[in-house]
Amino acid sequence: MPRHVAPSIAFQGERGAFSYSAALKLLGSSIDDLPCAAFRDVFESLKSGAVKFAVIPIENTLHGSIHENYDHLLEYGFPICGETNIRIAHNLIVMPGTRFRDIRKAFSHPVALNQCRQFFQKNKRIEPVSFYDTAGSVKMLHEGKEPGAAAIASEAAAKIYKGEILRRNIEDDRQNFTRFFLLTKQTRGVRTGSEPWKTSLVFATENLPGALFRAMACFALRDLNLTKIESRPLRGKPWEYLFYVDLIGRTDDRPVQNALNNLSETTRFVRVLGSYRPTS
Amino acid sequence: MPRHVAPSIAFQGERGAFSYSAALKLLGSSIDDLPCAAFRDVFESLKSGAVKFAVIPIENTLHGSIHENYDHLLEYGFPICGETNIRIAHNLIVMPGTRFRDIRKAFSHPVALNQCRQFFQKNKRIEPVSFYDTAGSVKMLHEGKEPGAAAIASEAAAKIYKGEILRRNIEDDRQNFTRFFLLTKQTRGVRTGSEPWKTSLVFATENLPGALFRAMACFALRDLNLTKIESRPLRGKPWEYLFYVDLIGRTDDRPVQNALNNLSETTRFVRVLGSYRPTS
Repeated sequence: MPRHVAPSIAFQGERGAFSYSAALKLLGSSIDDLPCAAFRDVFESLKSGAVKFAVIPIENTLHGSIHENYDHLLEYGFPICGETNIRIAHNLIVMPGTRFRDIRKAFSHPVALNQCRQFFQKNKRIEPVSFYDTAGSVKMLHEGKEPGAAAIASEAAAKIYKGEILRRNIEDDRQNFTRFFLLTKQTRGVRTGSEPWKTSLVFATENLPGALFRAMACFALRDLNLTKIESRPLRGKPWEYLFYVDLIGRTDDRPVQNALNNLSETTRFVRVLGSYRPTS
Repeated sequence: MPRHVAPSIAFQGERGAFSYSAALKLLGSSIDDLPCAAFRDVFESLKSGAVKFAVIPIENTLHGSIHENYDHLLEYGFPICGETNIRIAHNLIVMPGTRFRDIRKAFSHPVALNQCRQFFQKNKRIEPVSFYDTAGSVKMLHEGKEPGAAAIASEAAAKIYKGEILRRNIEDDRQNFTRFFLLTKQTRGVRTGSEPWKTSLVFATENLPGALFRAMACFALRDLNLTKIESRPLRGKPWEYLFYVDLIGRTDDRPVQNALNNLSETTRFVRVLGSYRPTS
């Protein structure tokens, strides 16, 4: 894309949310960002042409795959054109002038508060207070609504809302990463990461014993490396499943093409979600 | 277990949380329940002997597997002795006397608020307000802290805290189910559901091409039906994965035993998490 026009990108959350950090990592520091309230709004923004790109979280190392976004991927059909991982690190953020010993309240999304339980056990005078968003809680401090309070959010949120980080990485578990997909309507000419190509696909097997095993054979016969496989039961259809598969390779590669042709013989449907080079 | 002693069970959340409903469905209406702040506390309560049972959510149809609880299952080693599904239905709850047209605020966990976006779009005079817990928001109304406000939570929470349901099923997506495991230290003599036996296991493959395919062959060769397969990358160990597998059958069945023996030949480790009869 031309370097002189900042690419427009939609994401869920406030500026400074982890999706926002993923957008910066994928497209560089000069972006024209569109914060959205919900994942569906992110997809709608791309559909309407309001933005050229969208970024969505697809799985987290503690919480697993975000099925809702797989559903949207299938419904909207926008191809994946990039991928990256963001470490979820929580920081205690205040407005300049607030001292650590004076803090009595810390605002954040309850999922984030719950990931910092050891911090609150050690600092019992600080009360965790639920808020609708991590970055939004820093924004709220910035607007002067809770003088003397703290927020728990990303380093990016601290920068955007001119906060000061008093304690870094206060999360209990550091092995907390979220994987994001970059989406666009038209992948031609879009270049993102430099890691080896990956392809993501979804398929549904026939309701027959060994159906998954035959599907797996399509990949194994071509020595294709799978980096993800996940079944998801189809509600109301016992014994029918959706499978998410990621593999190393791109749809232009002959072995991948052959595997996909073979797969379409043995499954009820196959949909390629995209081939992309991850950004490390 | 003897019918005259209420079984003790730990769960995460307040009384009236969806885990609490799962506990009732699994063990009957007479339980001696122990609400816990975090999943780890649930496991610790079982470990210390404070309770005989624990119930944990393991996956959700919108949000996927809860890896954190798989980690705890591996760490603590308590066998699964039961399984059930709970439909996640959100209700608008008030204290008796509050009329729908007077409501200006609705309290709940932000994940629940976010699952009721259409309701808030249609009722713009009602402001969604984040709270640490769904059932906890009804408890708070019950304590008289926000007169005239509403809460969004389960029917069970409405009953426990003497609330009135003004609107049922206000969630956007009705296909929202959570699957729960029942755990105990000693499964002998424990009987729960009446559905066909299932077995859950975790294994890690060797870092070799086709390793997963060979693992899958162990099940396919015995015509065993898998109801779940999911890979999870091991952080810091590229190309090494944990796999979660559920299958129909129990470890006492000869074909399951043979499959497990065969699997241990071709994988780095195999751990059976339990055989159990689901409660429908």
